[in-house]
Amino acid sequence: MTTPHDYADAHATRFRDELVTLLRIPSVSTKQEHADDVRRAAHWIADNMRAMGFDTGEVIESQQPGQLPIVYGEALKAGANAPTVLVYGHYDVQPAAIADGWHTNPFEPIERDGKIYARGAIDSKSNVLAQLKAAESLLATECPVNLKLVFEGEEESSGQHLPSYVAAHAERLKADVIVICDGSMSSREQPFMSYALRGIMAMQLTVYGPAKDLHSGHYGGTVHNPLQALAEIITQLHHPDGSIAVPGFYDDVLPIPPADREEMAKVMPFLETEWADVAAAPQQWGEPDYNLHERIGARPTLEINGFAGGYFDAGFKTVLPAKAWAKISCRLVANQTPDRIYQQVRDFIHQIAPPTVRIEIQQMDDGYPLAPLPLDSVPMQAAVTAYERAWGLRPMFTREGGSVPIAVDLQRELGAPVVLLAFGYKGCGAHGPNEHVYLDMYQRGIHTMIYFCEALAEIQ
Amino acid sequence: MTTPHDYADAHATRFRDELVTLLRIPSVSTKQEHADDVRRAAHWIADNMRAMGFDTGEVIESQQPGQLPIVYGEALKAGANAPTVLVYGHYDVQPAAIADGWHTNPFEPIERDGKIYARGAIDSKSNVLAQLKAAESLLATECPVNLKLVFEGEEESSGQHLPSYVAAHAERLKADVIVICDGSMSSREQPFMSYALRGIMAMQLTVYGPAKDLHSGHYGGTVHNPLQALAEIITQLHHPDGSIAVPGFYDDVLPIPPADREEMAKVMPFLETEWADVAAAPQQWGEPDYNLHERIGARPTLEINGFAGGYFDAGFKTVLPAKAWAKISCRLVANQTPDRIYQQVRDFIHQIAPPTVRIEIQQMDDGYPLAPLPLDSVPMQAAVTAYERAWGLRPMFTREGGSVPIAVDLQRELGAPVVLLAFGYKGCGAHGPNEHVYLDMYQRGIHTMIYFCEALAEIQ
Repeated sequence: MTTPHDYADAHATRFRDELVTLLRIPSVSTKQEHADDVRRAAHWIADNMRAMGFDTGEVIESQQPGQLPIVYGEALKAGANAPTVLVYGHYDVQPAAIADGWHTNPFEPIERDGKIYARGAIDSKSNVLAQLKAAESLLATECPVNLKLVFEGEEESSGQHLPSYVAAHAERLKADVIVICDGSMSSREQPFMSYALRGIMAMQLTVYGPAKDLHSGHYGGTVHNPLQALAEIITQLHHPDGSIAVPGFYDDVLPIPPADREEMAKVMPFLETEWADVAAAPQQWGEPDYNLHERIGARPTLEINGFAGGYFDAGFKTVLPAKAWAKISCRLVANQTPDRIYQQVRDFIHQIAPPTVRIEIQQMDDGYPLAPLPLDSVPMQAAVTAYERAWGLRPMFTREGGSVPIAVDLQRELGAPVVLLAFGYKGCGAHGPNEHVYLDMYQRGIHTMIYFCEALAEIQ
Repeated sequence: MTTPHDYADAHATRFRDELVTLLRIPSVSTKQEHADDVRRAAHWIADNMRAMGFDTGEVIESQQPGQLPIVYGEALKAGANAPTVLVYGHYDVQPAAIADGWHTNPFEPIERDGKIYARGAIDSKSNVLAQLKAAESLLATECPVNLKLVFEGEEESSGQHLPSYVAAHAERLKADVIVICDGSMSSREQPFMSYALRGIMAMQLTVYGPAKDLHSGHYGGTVHNPLQALAEIITQLHHPDGSIAVPGFYDDVLPIPPADREEMAKVMPFLETEWADVAAAPQQWGEPDYNLHERIGARPTLEINGFAGGYFDAGFKTVLPAKAWAKISCRLVANQTPDRIYQQVRDFIHQIAPPTVRIEIQQMDDGYPLAPLPLDSVPMQAAVTAYERAWGLRPMFTREGGSVPIAVDLQRELGAPVVLLAFGYKGCGAHGPNEHVYLDMYQRGIHTMIYFCEALAEIQ
C-alpha cells in the first residue's frame, strides 16, 4: 500500500512547482494596492484545498472594510474518535522591491543551489504549502486525523480579522491540538521545537517639565530638564545587575523546572553563535543566574523601545524642552498578566517620578504569554516523534522570546494545547532581501507534518 | 545752548517715523529670498549715518558667497583725548508670517497704545535706531566721545561675517569701551543692566549597542539596550541634589563676591515672577546653596538639549535599537574654558560608560563666557549714571544665562571692556508673533545712550 510519505516523495516536483506558483502572487498585506493579489492567493489556496478532497475550502471575507480574507478548509474524514488538528498559518507577505537589495525580482521565484528565492519563501508560504501538501498526501492515502486548516492574510499587517473570527466561530474551529506553523529553526540539520512564547505589555511614558520649550541659557540650571528626569526614571527601572527593579515584577514568574533547564542548556551553543552573529553587541548583558536561553525565553524583560525629546537632528540647538517621552515594553512569561504588569510598572514610575516634573502613562498593547507546553504532553511527544522520524535527530527545545498573539487567542478560545512547528532555517532572510527557502527542508517539513498526524493518532 | 537731550526730544516724532521705516524692510537673514531686503536695510542705515554727519557710513560686503553685509560708521570728531565707544547691534530679523499668530502683517508696522508692532521691533531694530538717533543728537549738538557703530546682518542666522571682520580689522574697530546693544529688561520702569554672560560647550554623545536594530522579543534581556545605557550615563552626570557630578567641573568657577550676591539678590522678585510665568515647571530645581539668579547667571550648567533612539513616533514598535544619541551642552561662567570642560565631560563619560556598549563623543560648539564687568569700573559707573538720569532709578544688575559670542570676540580682539545696554522690555515677544516695542522705552533708550557718552567723558 502507498503510504502518505511515498505519495509525498512521488509528487515532490509538483509540490515544488506549486510553491513557486504561490510565491509568484505578491500577496503584500501592508499595501492597499496589493489587496487583489492577497485575495488571489487566498482563492488559489482554497481551490487547492477543494481539489485535493477537502470537505470545504472557503475564502472568508470580513464585514469590516479594509480587512483581508481568511482561508478555511476542513477534511473531517477520520471520524469522531480520531484526533482533530487545527493548523494556523499565514499567506500574506512583507513588501519587497529590487531596490531593497534583491538580486532578482522578489515575485519571480528562481531556484539556485537547492533554494528558491522569493518574497514569502520562508515567511511563510513554504509553511502554508507544507501543510497543504502534507494534507494532500494524507488524504490521498490514509488520513488518521481530522484536519482544519486556517490561513490568514493579515499577519504582516497585524489585522484583526482572524482574532474576531476565532472569537465568533470557536465551535467550528474546535480541535484537540492547535498547530502554529510559522517561524524557523536555528540549524539546517538539527530540528528545533519552540514550546513557549513570551507575552507583551507596551506603554508610553511622557515627562512634562516647563510649560513650553525654553532657552537653555535663560533657564538652564533652574528647571529639572524633562530629558534628564526621564533618563533618571529609566535608570531606576533596572537594578545595576540587569534585573528589573519594579516591586513585584517577578512575583508571578514560575521557576524553570530542572528538566527544562537541562533541555534549554542544550540549545546554548546555537544561541551563542546566533547572538554573536546577529546581536553582536560589545558584551552580553542581563539577569545574573540565568543563561542566554533562559533570559530570552523564560524570563520577563523591561525594554525601552524608543525615546525622544528636545532637538535631536543634525547640528545643535540650545533648547530646554517642555517634554520627553519613551516607549516601554515588557516581555512576559507564563503566569504573568499584562494588566498586573502594567499596574506595577505604572505605580512604580509614579512613585519614583520627582515632584519637579509631571508624568503621563498610557498602555499601548498587551498580549498574554504562551505557557510552556509540557515536554511529556501528548502533542509534544507526537511532535518529537515526528521530528525524529523526518530529521533523524531528536529536536532541541527552545522557549521563544517573541510573542504570537494568535497562538494565545486560539488556545484560549478553543481550549486546546498549542504546538509550534517550523520547518525552515532562521538564516533565510525573512522580511529582508533575497529571502529564500531550502527545498530539502520544505520537503522534510511535509514529512514532519505527516509523521506528526500519524504519531498523534498512534499515541491517542 | 541746545543739548543732545533737547535735540532728541524735539525730533522724537521723526525718530519714531524712522523706526517704522526700518521695520518695513523684511531683513530676514535666515531666508535666502530676503537677501536683497537685508541689503536694503544695510544701505538705509549707512545712508542715515552719512546724512547725520558721520565721517563714514559703509556697507561692507564679504568675499564669502552667501554672507550678508556689515554696516560700519565712524564719527571721530571728539579728538584723540576723548574716549572712543564701539557700539554693536544687528539689523537682521527672524522670519515672521501671519500664520504664526500675528494680528497684523509683521512687516506693516502699526502703532497701538504707545507700542509699535512689527517683526524686529524689540529684536533689535529699536536698539539699532536708538543708537543711531543718540549719535545724531550728539553730533548735532555736542559729542564728547568718538563713535564707531558696527551693525551685523547675520545675528539671527549665526553668520560668520562679523567675527572674521573683527579678527581682520581690530585696529579699525579699536575703542576704549564696547557697547553691546541687544537684549531686553525684566521691567518697564526699573532699568536692568546685564554685566556677565555665560559661555557654552556643546557636544553629541552616541551610544552604540547591537550591530543593528534587533527584535526586542528575540534578543530582549540579553543586550544592554543603548537607550537604557544612555539614560544611565545621563543620570550619572548630575548628583541627586542637582549639582554636576563631572570631576573637576567646578574647579575653575570663581566664588561670587558678597557685594555681587547682594546686588543679584535684589533682582530675585523679578526673576521669580518671570520664572513662574514663562518656565512654569511644577517646581524649581537646581544647585542647592544658590538662588535662582545665581543658578542662571553665575553657575555653570550641564543640560541635555535633546536625545533620541529607537522608535518614538505614534504607536509602538518592538525594536531594541542599535544606537541612541544625546545633544549635551554646558553653560560656562567666568574663568571656565570650553576646551577644558569638554575634556572633563568627555573623560567622565568614557569612565562611566559600561563595557556593554560603545560610545562616541563629538564636540559641536564652543563659546567663552563674558566675565562680569566689575560694578565699580569706569564703564559700569558711566552706565549706572546714564540709567539713573534717564529712568530716575538706579539699575539692577543681572548676570545673564545666555551666551553672546560676538561680545567675547570683540572683547578679546579689541582688548576693551564690554558693557551690555538694553532699553526694551523682555515681554515684547522677540522671535514670536506680535513682537512690539514701547515707544517711551525707545525714546528713553536714546537718552540713556546720550547720558552714557556724556558720563563716560565726564568720569574719564
